[in-house]
Amino acid sequence: MLKGKIAKLAVSDVRFPTSLEQHGSDAMHANPDYSAAYVVIETDDGLKGYGITFTVGRGTEIVVCAVEALSTLVIGKTLEDIVSNFSGFYRCLTSDSQMRWIGPEKGVIQLASAAILNAIWDMWARAEGKDPKQLIRCIDFRYITDALTEQEALNLLEKAKEGKQQREEEMLKEGYPAYTTSCAWLGYSDQQLTQLCSTALTEGWTKFKVKVGADLQDDIRRCSLIRKMIGPENSLMIDANQRWDVAEAISYVTKLAEFRPLWIEEPTCPDDILGHAAISKCHNRVMFKQFLQASALQFVQIDSCRVGSVNENLAIMLMAAKFRVPVCPHAGGVGLCELVQHLILFDYISVSASLENRMCEYVDHLHEHFKSPTVIRNAHYMPPKDPGFSSEMFDESVQKHQFPHGEVWRSILEKNGS
Amino acid sequence: MLKGKIAKLAVSDVRFPTSLEQHGSDAMHANPDYSAAYVVIETDDGLKGYGITFTVGRGTEIVVCAVEALSTLVIGKTLEDIVSNFSGFYRCLTSDSQMRWIGPEKGVIQLASAAILNAIWDMWARAEGKDPKQLIRCIDFRYITDALTEQEALNLLEKAKEGKQQREEEMLKEGYPAYTTSCAWLGYSDQQLTQLCSTALTEGWTKFKVKVGADLQDDIRRCSLIRKMIGPENSLMIDANQRWDVAEAISYVTKLAEFRPLWIEEPTCPDDILGHAAISKCHNRVMFKQFLQASALQFVQIDSCRVGSVNENLAIMLMAAKFRVPVCPHAGGVGLCELVQHLILFDYISVSASLENRMCEYVDHLHEHFKSPTVIRNAHYMPPKDPGFSSEMFDESVQKHQFPHGEVWRSILEKNGS
Repeated sequence: MLKGKIAKLAVSDVRFPTSLEQHGSDAMHANPDYSAAYVVIETDDGLKGYGITFTVGRGTEIVVCAVEALSTLVIGKTLEDIVSNFSGFYRCLTSDSQMRWIGPEKGVIQLASAAILNAIWDMWARAEGKDPKQLIRCIDFRYITDALTEQEALNLLEKAKEGKQQREEEMLKEGYPAYTTSCAWLGYSDQQLTQLCSTALTEGWTKFKVKVGADLQDDIRRCSLIRKMIGPENSLMIDANQRWDVAEAISYVTKLAEFRPLWIEEPTCPDDILGHAAISKCHNRVMFKQFLQASALQFVQIDSCRVGSVNENLAIMLMAAKFRVPVCPHAGGVGLCELVQHLILFDYISVSASLENRMCEYVDHLHEHFKSPTVIRNAHYMPPKDPGFSSEMFDESVQKHQFPHGEVWRSILEKNGS
Repeated sequence: MLKGKIAKLAVSDVRFPTSLEQHGSDAMHANPDYSAAYVVIETDDGLKGYGITFTVGRGTEIVVCAVEALSTLVIGKTLEDIVSNFSGFYRCLTSDSQMRWIGPEKGVIQLASAAILNAIWDMWARAEGKDPKQLIRCIDFRYITDALTEQEALNLLEKAKEGKQQREEEMLKEGYPAYTTSCAWLGYSDQQLTQLCSTALTEGWTKFKVKVGADLQDDIRRCSLIRKMIGPENSLMIDANQRWDVAEAISYVTKLAEFRPLWIEEPTCPDDILGHAAISKCHNRVMFKQFLQASALQFVQIDSCRVGSVNENLAIMLMAAKFRVPVCPHAGGVGLCELVQHLILFDYISVSASLENRMCEYVDHLHEHFKSPTVIRNAHYMPPKDPGFSSEMFDESVQKHQFPHGEVWRSILEKNGS
């Protein structure tokens, strides 16, 4: 099953015109078109793998160009070549002696690596199960051994074997707790917000995230509205999407404190470890390491596409477990929920063994384009049952949304006269 | 002069096959082909500006793709539009609400922004002089006001007016102290190293950088050889190009201590502020800010292309002045010496007013392709006298080295049968 050579890699620039309805709008991204560089790899004996990285519109063509440049490092290898020394392959992909200059392990090239690695994980996931030692071999420990050694990582996984089956059964029955970001995008009207929030409450949601940061008076009104609707018992989180300087963040957040946010997400620059971000999405394991070492975050927000796929997320989840900080994944976008559910279920079942202060973001857009979409029941992620990484999209969705020649974009661009 | 609209932006993928002779080789980049995304902008009234960002071969096409994507934010604007609110334009370019997702301010998109901004600075430099207030308006202070406010920056510049003319005259006469990296690339043989070092000594060089990090015994032999040749009085610096983990760096460097390196450059991951890098090149002002706040560097290595052009380097030099850390620029590559000499001369004349512990890297490759190449006299950079940013290349050089269709690459690729 693992012997076939990867003979093809195709990558598409797929964009959804979400900005038309202000879905996804926040203080820094006023009009995102949720998009993806979508990768399909295929072996010469017909095995396929689907991978994705999430983007928000313009610039997706740059990530596509980067995937094409990296594809030469993948074509011709067998799945066995790759997974038998997965950290070696990871390093080969992320540390090519010429291409690392334009990263390393950050920005466009990291997003492109993630799309390819996600496709390989999808292919591998369709093929067989993995044990702790195999997983450890997926991690590139370069630059993190001062926080977590290979042996420590293995010990964490071995220790978490206790109670594993029980947690598996629990997940199959109850699912993993989720919170919703779908009700309160920055560009939504108060009326839309009220209506969405009211529907979400009847569906069983108890945890809500609100986008803030563009205008203080607006934010006070919106947070007050939502806090009233959800009552004192439910949770409210706020997200400024990197809008503020450090002093600005402190003053702004003080004024929103009366609404008792559980966390403040991305108050300032994602690179600013010493700016004491309370919670953060980072671009690689070295940034996460320092946030943990500096006690600069209280929640770790992994992302299935921003960092180097499962390989790097394994390193991050293991470090979080060592530092005893809960993992609460970032999701939404295109396919992020589909992918990240695998990671958070793995975190609970095989690493942290705890649900305390833990929840996974959920956004209710674009799931209809995936062959194995997320299943939410009573505000919980129900474990996916199809083989793979849930990353495969319908061919028709991909074709229609190709930028700029798919039919959806052809008609939008014609209307705009471009 | 500033009223014409920018009507054209052309970008070329220019590569020099330096790997054939191991120029530029180090512990992480075994075979770099020194390359550039080379940008030419032109106004409808015929003013031109030349900009560059440095890369090391594969992946340059991704940066070119990013420059093309960003070009829509430049075309149609006048130079006056841009420089009258340069920090606003800087933010527009680096924070486009969709493209910032694939950065922000790091990796491919930051390199592409730098190439464009460098072209604009070149165009502006050909047009007129600037005063401190104009310079402050070039800086995007977002995320750094906790370390440096606009007012503090202005005060630093005003204070440095004292003795400015004297320093200008001194520079015109003596030049700015340089050190050389040309003698000891990792892939050079001992014989080549000895010969280059001996020539450099007769030319008046007193400060030498050696690439290390791939093999300890090799490095001991090479450092010993160089220390013997240059004697105890001259300076030796070592550069590991991000090769080590934190513990590894400490153990390795201990073993090279007997050769008394003045600094250890990039011992570990460039993102690792808490890994206590002794000296560092960073990808944006927020990273530099933290290295300074954490006292994690003793020398600031600015780069004319890695961060957001002059705009961001102004912020970094001003922060360095406030924290009283010397600026010792990174240079070499393609055009980095040509560009960075402007910055370091400005730093001495208008910001730091000191030469203590300061020197600028010099590498003796590829200057022949530039219309106003650097002039080195007695191991000092002599101030450039042509108008502009010294970034213009000869048309013939650009054409010959275009990848993959220029004649140099056509013949190399044919030989390799691709």
